[in-house]
Amino acid sequence: MTLRVGIIGTGSIGTDHARMLAGRVGRATVVAVTDVDGERAGALAAELGARHHADHAGLIADADVDAVVIASSGPAHAAQARACIAAGKPVLCEKPLAPTPAEALTVVQAEVAADRRLLQVGFMRRFDPGYLDVKGSLDAGVIGVPLLVHCVHRNPTVPPGFTPAMGLTDSMVHELDIVRWLLDDEIIEVQVLLPHPSPNGPTPDYQDPQLAVLRMSRGVLVDVEVLLHGGFGYDVRCEVVGSKGVAALENPRLASYVSAETRREAVPSGWKTRFADTYRIELQAWVNATLAGTVVGASAWDGYAASAAAAAAVEAQSTSGTPVVVAMEPKPALYA
Amino acid sequence: MTLRVGIIGTGSIGTDHARMLAGRVGRATVVAVTDVDGERAGALAAELGARHHADHAGLIADADVDAVVIASSGPAHAAQARACIAAGKPVLCEKPLAPTPAEALTVVQAEVAADRRLLQVGFMRRFDPGYLDVKGSLDAGVIGVPLLVHCVHRNPTVPPGFTPAMGLTDSMVHELDIVRWLLDDEIIEVQVLLPHPSPNGPTPDYQDPQLAVLRMSRGVLVDVEVLLHGGFGYDVRCEVVGSKGVAALENPRLASYVSAETRREAVPSGWKTRFADTYRIELQAWVNATLAGTVVGASAWDGYAASAAAAAAVEAQSTSGTPVVVAMEPKPALYA
Amino acid sequence: MTLRVGIIGTGSIGTDHARMLAGRVGRATVVAVTDVDGERAGALAAELGARHHADHAGLIADADVDAVVIASSGPAHAAQARACIAAGKPVLCEKPLAPTPAEALTVVQAEVAADRRLLQVGFMRRFDPGYLDVKGSLDAGVIGVPLLVHCVHRNPTVPPGFTPAMGLTDSMVHELDIVRWLLDDEIIEVQVLLPHPSPNGPTPDYQDPQLAVLRMSRGVLVDVEVLLHGGFGYDVRCEVVGSKGVAALENPRLASYVSAETRREAVPSGWKTRFADTYRIELQAWVNATLAGTVVGASAWDGYAASAAAAAAVEAQSTSGTPVVVAMEPKPALYA
Amino acid sequence: MTLRVGIIGTGSIGTDHARMLAGRVGRATVVAVTDVDGERAGALAAELGARHHADHAGLIADADVDAVVIASSGPAHAAQARACIAAGKPVLCEKPLAPTPAEALTVVQAEVAADRRLLQVGFMRRFDPGYLDVKGSLDAGVIGVPLLVHCVHRNPTVPPGFTPAMGLTDSMVHELDIVRWLLDDEIIEVQVLLPHPSPNGPTPDYQDPQLAVLRMSRGVLVDVEVLLHGGFGYDVRCEVVGSKGVAALENPRLASYVSAETRREAVPSGWKTRFADTYRIELQAWVNATLAGTVVGASAWDGYAASAAAAAAVEAQSTSGTPVVVAMEPKPALYA
Repeated sequence: MTLRVGIIGTGSIGTDHARMLAGRVGRATVVAVTDVDGERAGALAAELGARHHADHAGLIADADVDAVVIASSGPAHAAQARACIAAGKPVLCEKPLAPTPAEALTVVQAEVAADRRLLQVGFMRRFDPGYLDVKGSLDAGVIGVPLLVHCVHRNPTVPPGFTPAMGLTDSMVHELDIVRWLLDDEIIEVQVLLPHPSPNGPTPDYQDPQLAVLRMSRGVLVDVEVLLHGGFGYDVRCEVVGSKGVAALENPRLASYVSAETRREAVPSGWKTRFADTYRIELQAWVNATLAGTVVGASAWDGYAASAAAAAAVEAQSTSGTPVVVAMEPKPALYA
Repeated sequence: MTLRVGIIGTGSIGTDHARMLAGRVGRATVVAVTDVDGERAGALAAELGARHHADHAGLIADADVDAVVIASSGPAHAAQARACIAAGKPVLCEKPLAPTPAEALTVVQAEVAADRRLLQVGFMRRFDPGYLDVKGSLDAGVIGVPLLVHCVHRNPTVPPGFTPAMGLTDSMVHELDIVRWLLDDEIIEVQVLLPHPSPNGPTPDYQDPQLAVLRMSRGVLVDVEVLLHGGFGYDVRCEVVGSKGVAALENPRLASYVSAETRREAVPSGWKTRFADTYRIELQAWVNATLAGTVVGASAWDGYAASAAAAAAVEAQSTSGTPVVVAMEPKPALYA
Repeated sequence: MTLRVGIIGTGSIGTDHARMLAGRVGRATVVAVTDVDGERAGALAAELGARHHADHAGLIADADVDAVVIASSGPAHAAQARACIAAGKPVLCEKPLAPTPAEALTVVQAEVAADRRLLQVGFMRRFDPGYLDVKGSLDAGVIGVPLLVHCVHRNPTVPPGFTPAMGLTDSMVHELDIVRWLLDDEIIEVQVLLPHPSPNGPTPDYQDPQLAVLRMSRGVLVDVEVLLHGGFGYDVRCEVVGSKGVAALENPRLASYVSAETRREAVPSGWKTRFADTYRIELQAWVNATLAGTVVGASAWDGYAASAAAAAAVEAQSTSGTPVVVAMEPKPALYA
Repeated sequence: MTLRVGIIGTGSIGTDHARMLAGRVGRATVVAVTDVDGERAGALAAELGARHHADHAGLIADADVDAVVIASSGPAHAAQARACIAAGKPVLCEKPLAPTPAEALTVVQAEVAADRRLLQVGFMRRFDPGYLDVKGSLDAGVIGVPLLVHCVHRNPTVPPGFTPAMGLTDSMVHELDIVRWLLDDEIIEVQVLLPHPSPNGPTPDYQDPQLAVLRMSRGVLVDVEVLLHGGFGYDVRCEVVGSKGVAALENPRLASYVSAETRREAVPSGWKTRFADTYRIELQAWVNATLAGTVVGASAWDGYAASAAAAAAVEAQSTSGTPVVVAMEPKPALYA
C-alpha cells in the first residue's frame, strides 16, 4: 500500500519534503504539486513525474491525492489546512500552523467541527532520536520529577529581514512545542529578558540574544536562550533537571578529531544539517500513521498552543521583564 | 521508478532487510521471497504481499524480480551470487561473500567472465555516518598521512557455537573491510596475539580476546582488539593516527545523563542497535545505485580480499605471533 | 622566608586550612590557633605544634604571627577582620566577609581608613584551574564580547537548618563573586524566579531550586540555577556565551569508564572533593602574595559587593520575579 | 618538622624540582645544590638561599642535608644513588635509574647490601590523579580481571639527537613502569612493530612511530603506540580492558569551548604542562614519606625492571617483530 501525496508549496522546504517522500521514504509517492510560482512547481512536477496543479484547491480535490503536505508560506497555511480537513484528507502542515493564535484556532475548530483529527503540524523535533532519548528517560522516571529546563537555540545567522520577534515566533517556537511535549504540560506564562545586544546583529540596537523564561502549568520553569547571530554554528541543546538527575540533549557526535592541541567534535553548521534525518523520520512516521488511519506528532491543538505562547512571548518583549499570561481557549475533548 | 526486489533467505537479517525495503526505503518494493524454511518464507511473503518461491533459482528467474538480496546462510552465498550474475541481475549479498577465499574468488571470476559488475557485498559500515565522517576527513587530508590505526570491536556476547576463529571471520571481518576502505590499501600480512583468556568465555581455555595486527601494503599498521564476551555493550571504535592529527570514530551520542555522581552516555547494546540506521542507508544506496545502473559499496573483489585476510588471520591464530602473508590473486581490471 | 600563620576558627574548614598550610603549602607554617571551642583548638595546636590562644585578640597580637586566617563563624568575621587590619596584619577571611552588606562595609572602611589593603576574602574559585582557563579565554578575546552567562550550582544536599535564603547567601554567593570576576563588572539588579519545589526538600513547601537572573552593569545577563537537594552529586558548571563563541567550565575529568552499556565520567561528590586542590592553590597564592607584600584574590570590596548582591537576591525571593536593585556605596579609590 | 633537601643536578628538571620544593611543597626546604656546571648551580643556590657544593660527594656528606634529589644526567644516576645509600640518606632519583639494566641492578644490590630501602625513582605518573583514579578502579574490581591494555604516548616533538631507541628507553619507559604498577605484574616479553615512518621525522627513514606489544607474566597483553613527532600536542592516554568493563585515562579536561562549528577541549602542549602538578604531588609524597621514615612510589627494583624491559624493547627493534624475552634477576626479598 502506497500513500499518494500532494505537495502545496515548492520552495526550499517543500522541495526537500517532496524529494524525500519520493526518494527516501518507504510506501510513499508524490503524485501532485502546486505553488504560487507555477514555473517552480512545474519543474518539480517534471522531476518527480508528478501532476502539476494550478492551485491548492485543485490539488486537494484531485482524487489521486490521498494526503497533503502544506509547505507554502505561513500566512497561507490555515486556509489550506481547513480545505484539506473539509475534503477529509490527512495533512502534514509545516510550522507555524498560522501566524496568529486566532487563525490557528480556526484549524482546531475545523477539526472539532469535523469531529476528526486529520492534521499533523511539522514540529519535526518530536521525531529526533536525541529528543526521543530524553523524552524516553523522562517518561521512564530516570531523572524523577522535572523541576527546571534549560534550553539554548543558537543560530549561526538568520536571513535578511528576520526580526527579533521572529526569533520568538519562528526560532523559539520549536522550544515552545518541544517543552510542552517533553513535560506533557502547558505553558502558562512567558517572560522575555533582554541583555545588551550582540555586535553581530544588522544594527547596533537589534535585540539579539533574548532570554525567555516559561512557566509551565505544573510549576516547572524553562529558560530559553535564543541567539540569532551566533556565528559559530547551529547549537541546539536542552537540559532537563529533575529530582533524581539531569537529562541533556547533546549535539549528535559521530567522531572526534585531535589536532593543534585540541580535541574537537563537530557542531552542526545549520538547521538543515542538524535535522536532515529528523525530517525523514517525521515524514516516514506521517506516512505510516496516515496509511494506518491514525495521526501522530504535534496536533492542530499543539500548533495553536505554540502559537499562543509565541504571541505572549512577542508581547513580553516590551513589558520590561514582567510575565505575560498565555491566553488560550479551553482544550476540546477531541485532543484529550 | 521502483526497484522490485527478491529476498533469498528470511532468517533474522533477511527479514530485517525485507521489512526495511518494504517499509522504510524509498523507490523499492519486495516482490518475492524464498528460504530453505518454506513456512518462514511463506509467512513473510504473506506479510509483505510478496510472491513465495520454492527455491532461489525460481526467485532469480522471476521476471518481476529486478534485483536480489542474498541473506541466506554463508555457505550458500557464492552459488546464489553466481546465479544472479549469470541472470544479469544486480545483487546485494550479505557478508561474508563466501566462507573461503577460493569460493569468494569464483564470484569475482563470474563477474570478470560477464565483464560486468553486478554485486555489492553487505559491508554496511561503509554507509555508516560515523565512518563516512572519518573517511571524509582522511580524504580531505585533515590528519595528513595515515600511520597507524587502532580498532576495538567488543561484542557483549556471541551466540552458542561461535568459535574464536569466527571472531576473526565473522566479527573482525568488518574491520578487515573497513580499514581497506578507509586507507584505500590492501592488507598484506596478519599477526594474531593471544592474551590470557577472559573468564567470560564458555570454557576456561576459550581464546577471547584476540589482538590482531594488520600490515597494509603502504606500511600502515592496524591493531584490532576482538572481544566476543565483553558483557558491557557493543563497543566499536576506530582511531586513525596521521602525520597531522588523529581521527576517531566514536560511539554515536545523542544525549547524556547525570545521576549518582556520574555523567553517562549510552554504549550501544548490540550490533543491531548500533547499525540499525546504517543498514537502512546501505539499502537505500543500493536501491538508488541499482536504479541508476551502477554499483556502490564493497565489490566482489572487496569480499574476496576480506575473505583472504580473514583466512590468513585464522592461520595466524596458531603461529605464535608470527605474521602470516595474505595470499591473493592479482586484481582484475574490472575492479580498478 | 616562611610565613608564620595564626588560625582563628578550628571547625571543619579552619582545620582543613591549618593542616593544608602546615603540610602541603610551601613557605608557610602554622604557629598559633584559637577557637571558641578551646578544647578543639588545643587539640589542633598540639597536632601542629602550634601555640593555643584563648581568643582572637591574643592571637592577632602575638608577635610571632605574621598573618591570620579567619575561619570562624560568619557573624564573627567582620570584627576579627577589622582587628587584623588595625594590627596591620595580612588576613585571609573565609567567605562571607560578613552576614550583611552594612557589616561588610565596615571592613572596607577600615582598610580605607588605614589606606592600605590587607585582606583577601576566601572566594577560592578565583584560583580554580578550570575557572582560570575560562577567565583566560575571556581576557584573550577567544569568545568575543560576553552576552550571557548560564550557571548551575547543584548541591547533593545541605546541612540541617540550611534555608532557601542561605541558598543565595552561602551557596550562590560563589557565583555572585565569580561572575563579577569573570566579566570584570558589577551586578546591578537581581531577579529570583521560583519553580515548583523539589520533592527532595525537608518540607513540601521548601523552596528548592531557585533560578536567579543577574543583570550586570554593562548589560550582560546571568542566570543561576541554585539547587540544594539535587541528590546526584555536586555539579557546578558555567557557560559564558560571547559574540564569537562559548566558553564552558566543565566538571574536571581525569578518566572515563565503560560498563553496563554506558560510558561514564565522575561528577564530584561534594564541594570539598571538587575544590580540594583549589583551596591549596588559594592558600599558596595567599602565602606567596603576603610574603611579597601584596594582596591577591577577592578584596574586601569584592566581599562587600557579593554581600550586597546576596542581600538583593534574598529580597528578590519575595518580589514575585520583579528585579531588585543592588544597593552599593561608591567604590573607594583604594580598590580601583 | 622540615625536610632539608640537597639537589644534585640543576638543569631544567633539577631546577624545577628545587623551586617546587622550596616554594610549593610543604615541610621541605632546599639547603644545598650542586651541578657539573658550577655557575648554574651557584645561581640557583643564590636564588634559593641554599649552599653550593662543588660536587655530589660534598652535598651528600653535608650534615644539614637530610635527603637528596638526583636530577643529573642519566649516566651519573647510579653512582650518585649508591653514594646516597652508602651514606644512609633517602633519595629521589629521576628516571631512568640507569642507562642499562646492569647498572640499575647495582643500585638494587646496594640497597640489598644495606638491607634497607632508601630510594624512590621519579616515575611521577604513579602520583598523577588520573592514573590513580584508574588504579583505584582496578584495585576495587570495577572492571573485573584485566585482559588488555592500550596505551598511546604521543609527543609533539623531541629534542635534536633523540633517537628511536630513546623513544623506548626515555619516552615509553613511563608506560613500562606504569603498566607494571597498574597491573601489579612483570613484563616478560616485548615485541616492537614498525610501520612506515612518519614524514615528520628528521630524516625519511627515521623510525617513528613504533608499536610495542608487551606480555605480562599473568598473560595480559599491552600495546603501546610511541610517537615522537606527532606535532599536534602531548597526547598520553591508556585504556585497560577488563572482564567487566573498561577504564580509560583521559587527557585532563577543565573546560570546553565552542567556536567555528566545533566544540573543543585542550590537549596538553607538552609533558611539562601535562604533568606539572603531578611532579608537585610526587615531591610532596616523597617529603611526607621521608619525614615518616618510609619509602613510596617506584622502588630501585621498579627502576631496574623498567630498565630491563626497555633494553628488551631496544633489542626488539631489530628482530622483525619477534618477541624478545625480558632478562631479569630474581626479585630480592627486600622488595617483596
